[in-house]
Amino acid sequence: MKLAIDAMGGDHAPKEIVLGAMDAIEAIKDLEIVLIGNQEKINPILTNQTRISIIHTDEVITSDDEPVRAVRKKKNASLVLMAKEVKEGRADACISAGNTGALMAAGLFGVGRITGIDRPALSPTLPTIDGKGFLLLDVGANVEAKAHHLLQYGIMGSIYTEKVRGINNPTVGLMNVGTEDGKGNELTKKAFELLKDAPINFIGNVEARDLLSGAADVVVTDGFSGNVALKTIEGTAETMFHMLKETFMSSFKTKIAAGMMKQDLKGLKGKLDYSEYGGAGLFGLAAPVIKAHGSSNRRAIHSAIRQACHMVEFKVTDTIKNTVSEIDIDKGEKE
Amino acid sequence: MKLAIDAMGGDHAPKEIVLGAMDAIEAIKDLEIVLIGNQEKINPILTNQTRISIIHTDEVITSDDEPVRAVRKKKNASLVLMAKEVKEGRADACISAGNTGALMAAGLFGVGRITGIDRPALSPTLPTIDGKGFLLLDVGANVEAKAHHLLQYGIMGSIYTEKVRGINNPTVGLMNVGTEDGKGNELTKKAFELLKDAPINFIGNVEARDLLSGAADVVVTDGFSGNVALKTIEGTAETMFHMLKETFMSSFKTKIAAGMMKQDLKGLKGKLDYSEYGGAGLFGLAAPVIKAHGSSNRRAIHSAIRQACHMVEFKVTDTIKNTVSEIDIDKGEKE
Repeated sequence: MKLAIDAMGGDHAPKEIVLGAMDAIEAIKDLEIVLIGNQEKINPILTNQTRISIIHTDEVITSDDEPVRAVRKKKNASLVLMAKEVKEGRADACISAGNTGALMAAGLFGVGRITGIDRPALSPTLPTIDGKGFLLLDVGANVEAKAHHLLQYGIMGSIYTEKVRGINNPTVGLMNVGTEDGKGNELTKKAFELLKDAPINFIGNVEARDLLSGAADVVVTDGFSGNVALKTIEGTAETMFHMLKETFMSSFKTKIAAGMMKQDLKGLKGKLDYSEYGGAGLFGLAAPVIKAHGSSNRRAIHSAIRQACHMVEFKVTDTIKNTVSEIDIDKGEKE
Repeated sequence: MKLAIDAMGGDHAPKEIVLGAMDAIEAIKDLEIVLIGNQEKINPILTNQTRISIIHTDEVITSDDEPVRAVRKKKNASLVLMAKEVKEGRADACISAGNTGALMAAGLFGVGRITGIDRPALSPTLPTIDGKGFLLLDVGANVEAKAHHLLQYGIMGSIYTEKVRGINNPTVGLMNVGTEDGKGNELTKKAFELLKDAPINFIGNVEARDLLSGAADVVVTDGFSGNVALKTIEGTAETMFHMLKETFMSSFKTKIAAGMMKQDLKGLKGKLDYSEYGGAGLFGLAAPVIKAHGSSNRRAIHSAIRQACHMVEFKVTDTIKNTVSEIDIDKGEKE
């Protein structure tokens, strides 16, 4: 198995990317990695070249670049060359911690869609109280979703969760403004009917309030609302940690208390750290494409590599293709 | 000034409602209150009847009732009679901590809309790190919003924030999937253009991640996304407090640390408690209608009463009506 990795994407590139790649090589036998990026910057960090090669390029897409234009113009950017490795069959999957929009564009134009999937979905796994985590899709690949897109998200999410996360018969919920049947806007009402009849364990509507309590293993929503939910979770958690820190630093007494439970508080933060669950898959593409978090450290990169390997090993893409082609026949009738 | 209050709505009704009403009477001179509900349950709590009267009714709409049907069938429910007091001019504004959907229905059918406002918006004020708070609208009164609804939300929110919250020239942001101009789906792109030309201090797109950091004084969004954002904030905060509590209770050492900073932690929770900011206004109705939080205690009810008084005193409804009628002329052209 061979993975193509954008060595220049993310806040801590190339250092943490290269370190994560070396960690993964050590842990996963038969894995080969090709790092794409500036070899002068990569080489000093790459202390072990076992099964790791480099494709050199100077060009980089930054987080400030306009995604679609950057992918079209910067033909030698590390992210673009990475997608090309997959497209031309030299790699089985790819990973970048860089510009999300550019990765989506490179995935769509470079790697291409699975026949039958209209829109890929950006799908991170987020933490839950019980540590099990849940998959949320879409969080922004497609901000004008139709009901049959949401149906496809449910199927793709269910297959991924069963195959890669090892959860048997995963529950699939539809994010909505209430839990009762018949709630919501036109989109969710239509999607509810399609999901009800899909070959998945659909449990109906779930509310955003219950996401982190583990309302469902897979939560389906349109890219706009999913983006709002994801960013609200991140923003609220950050705000609370900030306030907690201020509280702990507010007096001599609280500083002592903070010192007493430093390790425990680290554990708390760890529970909400979703880098453990790997990156966000771009489901619906012809090969696994993983968006690692922009702030990924070596551990997060290692997780994303393991995740990509599992997706290849358990043939997630083929299973999605076959499942969608089976239910595709009557999709048109239903909507 | 006279307020009609549903004494039977909310988790702690009628006790906390009646206590909050008595507190408000003591604090606000010239205020009169009519409590609507079961007088046998209200009377034992109502230890001071100064400027407080009761309209007795046995009928109640519960949180399990289907809102629209309940408002139509239970013609003597406390919530329905409350709206009637406003409609027939015997009260200037009304407050309920009961069934949100039923209050929206009673507001719409009973109190009625302001001419020129197509859809009312449910508008809570939420906390920010700096303690200033921000207004989010709509959080679910209208889950099929059009761009000109969002324009009206921006205007209504701006007027409320300036008049009632005393924030001069409040900033208005549009919740979106990115901060750059031109981001988003068809709805937000259209709404952006309308808000840009509106007589408000529009600062462009804001991301859900930055809501609690105070990205804008007023954040405009469609009812579906707003509901997702509100419930995600609530759910994430609850989850984190739950995890924090577990961390503090996990060992002898952490229990001691928790004991040392009990008061500080209460303060932290207080910062995120938005009952201080009053209830959620149903903006766009012909008189102030306030939805107090279902779990409202006497303090939250007191805040909601103060809020309703300010809305009456500063003529928020009239100002909205006049502002909308002025810009209404070219609204059709713009969309």
